[in-house]
Amino acid sequence: MSRLQNTLLQLKTKGLDGLIVTSDSDISYLTNYQSRDSLLFLSQKLNIFLTDSRYFDEAKNILDKKIRPQKNNGSLFEAAAILCCKANLKRIGFDENNFTFAQHKKLQDLLKKKAKLIPSHGLIDDLRQLKDQNELKKIKKAIQITKETLCYIQKFIKPGIKEIEIAGEIERYIRYKGASSSAFNIIVASGANSCYPHHISSKRTLKMNEPVLIDLGVEYEGYKSDLTRVFFLGKISTLVRDVYKLVHKAQEQAFSVIKPGANSKDIDLAARLIIKEAGYGDNFGHSLGHGVGLDIHENPKISPKSNTIMQPGMVFTIEPAVYLPNKFGIRIEDMVLVTEKGGEVLSGTIN
Amino acid sequence: MSRLQNTLLQLKTKGLDGLIVTSDSDISYLTNYQSRDSLLFLSQKLNIFLTDSRYFDEAKNILDKKIRPQKNNGSLFEAAAILCCKANLKRIGFDENNFTFAQHKKLQDLLKKKAKLIPSHGLIDDLRQLKDQNELKKIKKAIQITKETLCYIQKFIKPGIKEIEIAGEIERYIRYKGASSSAFNIIVASGANSCYPHHISSKRTLKMNEPVLIDLGVEYEGYKSDLTRVFFLGKISTLVRDVYKLVHKAQEQAFSVIKPGANSKDIDLAARLIIKEAGYGDNFGHSLGHGVGLDIHENPKISPKSNTIMQPGMVFTIEPAVYLPNKFGIRIEDMVLVTEKGGEVLSGTIN
Repeated sequence: MSRLQNTLLQLKTKGLDGLIVTSDSDISYLTNYQSRDSLLFLSQKLNIFLTDSRYFDEAKNILDKKIRPQKNNGSLFEAAAILCCKANLKRIGFDENNFTFAQHKKLQDLLKKKAKLIPSHGLIDDLRQLKDQNELKKIKKAIQITKETLCYIQKFIKPGIKEIEIAGEIERYIRYKGASSSAFNIIVASGANSCYPHHISSKRTLKMNEPVLIDLGVEYEGYKSDLTRVFFLGKISTLVRDVYKLVHKAQEQAFSVIKPGANSKDIDLAARLIIKEAGYGDNFGHSLGHGVGLDIHENPKISPKSNTIMQPGMVFTIEPAVYLPNKFGIRIEDMVLVTEKGGEVLSGTIN
Repeated sequence: MSRLQNTLLQLKTKGLDGLIVTSDSDISYLTNYQSRDSLLFLSQKLNIFLTDSRYFDEAKNILDKKIRPQKNNGSLFEAAAILCCKANLKRIGFDENNFTFAQHKKLQDLLKKKAKLIPSHGLIDDLRQLKDQNELKKIKKAIQITKETLCYIQKFIKPGIKEIEIAGEIERYIRYKGASSSAFNIIVASGANSCYPHHISSKRTLKMNEPVLIDLGVEYEGYKSDLTRVFFLGKISTLVRDVYKLVHKAQEQAFSVIKPGANSKDIDLAARLIIKEAGYGDNFGHSLGHGVGLDIHENPKISPKSNTIMQPGMVFTIEPAVYLPNKFGIRIEDMVLVTEKGGEVLSGTIN
């Protein structure tokens, strides 16, 4: 069944007559076409891709015949309201995590009392969790570029260079290797900076005998990657070495329990227990992982509170960590695909 | 008067007891501190910066004494609701263009009927329009880095290199010059690609005898820049040359009418008329300019429908353009500061 058919089936199940999609990645998923500032109107009889002159001509030739492009240079919401009225829809879904309060108000005002907007977050997210072969090909390519970049960047990791300069070298190289951009603000965290999970690459210069954590992802044809590696300059202290081994062991443990039918929280627990038993439970505050695809953070979540049953086709990160305040942090992040047999580590062995 | 005092005065004028601020740039403007995933609670008696452990310790030492940091690792909205109730606020402002529908619902549900959330978009935006000396210093530094980069990048503009590779060289260089990142997805548009105002840098290789448009901005200590230059490879056709001269003339005309008291739509008109009279009115579809500061697009808008009276301290782009479908596009974009005397072109003369 096509992605569109699947979505229309979901609408029926949830008692919705139509759906207004505004998220770029949701639209890209359903149309197989990347655009911005567009809107997708879905209903059982009529599916319209509202876009402006930048994308219209190209979309016309690419889109599935079941989705008709319509050129729109005015307000997307006014055009959408007209479509809703023409199709006589009564219950229309929208993503309450993607619509601003003002957008919802505008659309509901335009619809007057003829139709009601129904919060429907999660409807497309759930479908997007399961990647098809075409999507996996793009994700694998994004991972390949990331791995090559992590290999290339090693020659720059030396005392005196700034974190932000290493980020600059990465931003340059990924584009020569075929990426369209980085998938998020690249994290280069040296020394004590590595103990901040979301450190912003700074002007700090690298020093001898300290770890350098690099968290890097790229975008390839809309699909993302996300890997973290820790490099070492000079001597590695026993503490750093022991923590690194521990985090690595936690990751291996998580890998080993991934298979269809497993619960996401048990995968999180597998890694977390190893860290806890070593006495570092309080030094690993974030989730073990997150889905990656058209968005850098998507479903499934792999956390103590999550509750997703693993299915073949799911792709996510496994990124256990230990952060020692004012000292250093170690995080190892890889991407895994759930297969019929178990978990396939897409980013291969650590190098 | 401080930014905070100014904001509190605005609240009074609008009959609001408090304000919930969630936009990163609004928070940065009011606290003079850059963070993410934080929330600022404002009221006449109490001002609280809710943030997590990443930012708390640093913020503690930096923030103005009138804004108290509070560590928060749970839900920001739950913590904000508690503050609203404790302070017994009844009418609380929020930015309806920045809150998602779900966030508004969550906060309003938590407040129950004790308080009402009032859409207040524009309240801080209006204040942010007028830049102080400290802000201007950062904007000027961002512009300087951008200009140096446009100079540096010229040696890469030759046949055979891909658009995306030039973007990569830019991403690298700006970080060596002190920028923390690019301010938006850098546009490198060669040949016919230059006729798309928001072209995404692609794998197309540069060819002889065609224009290469580069639209580039960087971020420096939170503040942005935004400049566009067109470079030429080999021979320049008479048509390209004439259009370039025309766009340049339109920009000069706009510069000449900028002064305190002028209306933004008249500035737009000054440039637009020049282009229209030359017969290219239909080939310039977008606004003439937009404010730049903590956000890459902010107030004031300089468009046919805008209606802002110029005041000293406003900073915005002037970017007239002519796009000839399937042929080429020319856009020249500079940044201007409104001074007591008129308009000062911050990005200097074209080079």
